[in-house]
Amino acid sequence: MKKFNLAVIGATGLVGGTILNTLAERDFPIENLYLFSSKKSAGSKIEFKGQDYLVEELAEDSFDRDIDIALFAGGGAVSERFAPIAVEKGVHVVDNSSVFRMNKEVPLVVPEINPEDIKWSKGIIANPNCSTIQSVIPLKPLHDKFKVKRVIYSTYQSVSGSGLGGLRDLEEGLVEFYPYQIAYNAIPHIDSFLENGYTKEEIKMIDETKKILNDDSIKVTATTVRIPVKYAHSVSINIEFEKKFELEEVYKALEEFPGIKVEDDVKNNLYPMPIKAEGKDEVFIGRIRRDFSVENGINIWSVADNIRKGAATNAVQIAELVAKNLE
Amino acid sequence: MKKFNLAVIGATGLVGGTILNTLAERDFPIENLYLFSSKKSAGSKIEFKGQDYLVEELAEDSFDRDIDIALFAGGGAVSERFAPIAVEKGVHVVDNSSVFRMNKEVPLVVPEINPEDIKWSKGIIANPNCSTIQSVIPLKPLHDKFKVKRVIYSTYQSVSGSGLGGLRDLEEGLVEFYPYQIAYNAIPHIDSFLENGYTKEEIKMIDETKKILNDDSIKVTATTVRIPVKYAHSVSINIEFEKKFELEEVYKALEEFPGIKVEDDVKNNLYPMPIKAEGKDEVFIGRIRRDFSVENGINIWSVADNIRKGAATNAVQIAELVAKNLE
Repeated sequence: MKKFNLAVIGATGLVGGTILNTLAERDFPIENLYLFSSKKSAGSKIEFKGQDYLVEELAEDSFDRDIDIALFAGGGAVSERFAPIAVEKGVHVVDNSSVFRMNKEVPLVVPEINPEDIKWSKGIIANPNCSTIQSVIPLKPLHDKFKVKRVIYSTYQSVSGSGLGGLRDLEEGLVEFYPYQIAYNAIPHIDSFLENGYTKEEIKMIDETKKILNDDSIKVTATTVRIPVKYAHSVSINIEFEKKFELEEVYKALEEFPGIKVEDDVKNNLYPMPIKAEGKDEVFIGRIRRDFSVENGINIWSVADNIRKGAATNAVQIAELVAKNLE
Repeated sequence: MKKFNLAVIGATGLVGGTILNTLAERDFPIENLYLFSSKKSAGSKIEFKGQDYLVEELAEDSFDRDIDIALFAGGGAVSERFAPIAVEKGVHVVDNSSVFRMNKEVPLVVPEINPEDIKWSKGIIANPNCSTIQSVIPLKPLHDKFKVKRVIYSTYQSVSGSGLGGLRDLEEGLVEFYPYQIAYNAIPHIDSFLENGYTKEEIKMIDETKKILNDDSIKVTATTVRIPVKYAHSVSINIEFEKKFELEEVYKALEEFPGIKVEDDVKNNLYPMPIKAEGKDEVFIGRIRRDFSVENGINIWSVADNIRKGAATNAVQIAELVAKNLE
């Protein structure tokens, strides 16, 4: 089996650290591993599979050595500046930031949905937004069967989506990272506001859903909200289909789709929740029920660990596809 | 000005206590005040406007004395048993439980919306569900102008909606009242589950919306979720109208409606939040924006103190209407 030279950018961050754990767990075939961070964290050491690795400061010449795949998790500014440099030097980039996601020359990939899109990559493959991933995964099998007409998302997002700063605000009751106290609060404000009154996070969910499902005819709207949860996002998803359906068909389609675990036995209080999804790689779907307010509608409740399937796991799965392609 | 003999049932509970505070704040014209509770809390004393009142155990003969209006906040079982007894003895009942809300002979009143409905009361007037009240208040002026066709609610409900037991679970990190830990969690389960997969809380929001707005043609669906917030519920509301509208007309209609405070200046991070709504009587509306996924749609975000406007304040406002009618 071929082994690869891998770089992880933002290795000291919350997502970067989870990428390393995921690479180890999934036994990614690594020849050489290079870890990069900003100047601030450079010089520290990180253990990976029993071996210590020095974290280097990311620089323009960082990609001069022989690197096959670079996983970027250092934020938008870092990706914007360094991903094109890496590509120019022949590196395959898996980018966790939002910078390139809607670029028409960049595939936006959820491996369970559109693995074939990596084929037309010109060097960068974008990892979707965390709340988008756990929303499009249940949409995909249902779209294939019943054609999704319209989707309304309301999110319940954990503070780990903001990285270590968000966790600190919640755990220590601070008002540093968020504009308001997040403990005992709900803040309907994720990422910055746009002219039309939406947040960037809401627009990401709207645009990325269409791109990943490769169907611009799907109508989508979203309201994204931060709540006092540490790990795992939840999304209340209202879906209207073009075609008629039986609820049993919906269950079956969801249960058979890779990456989904249906948890829906309300008589026994079984439904997805953040505290149960934390640390897991599946997208948990429950509260599946017909929406009687429209002809062909359902409501579902989706929960997934935003740092794992919402970021690190999906990025590593993309890297696995790239590696397979390079073999 | 005529003064009234008032009874508060469930006076030692969270809503009962807030009813007493609200009666004092609004200077309700009281001649005699009688406080009732279950056997467990009977015998305790509660101060009201500088005077101590003995809490009596509620019994079948409690309404034998001259009582004009009784505010019931002792839970469904207490209302079911004792409200009809009170009515039989000529008492006007304002009931905070869900027991009589959908009874066709019982008006379901939000004073800003349908005060005239108290006229056809046969003795009991029902106070709507907390999350319903803060949702129908913004719907009313918009329904009058643009005719609401379909509404999709996703709620973010605080633990005080479950009374003191819910607050204790959150504050002390217990798993006593809820089936799971509520701290750092989101539980998509409020009240019990029905055969069709909905919770009673969701069905309350659906049914009560139509009854209060007196329009069965409105289509409604709901997903109700408990989150780690102490006071004030939030609701993400997606609304589709029959008629075309300008966003400025929506703002104007909401701003002019009594009981609403529009908080919507996202450039200055102004939007409604539970920590700001706590202790207030208004329904706070923000994040008002066009929903581009449908012809005539908007998304809004509604926050209100579930114990005040969602329960106690609305009940006292109904009692004021009843009192005015008795004068």
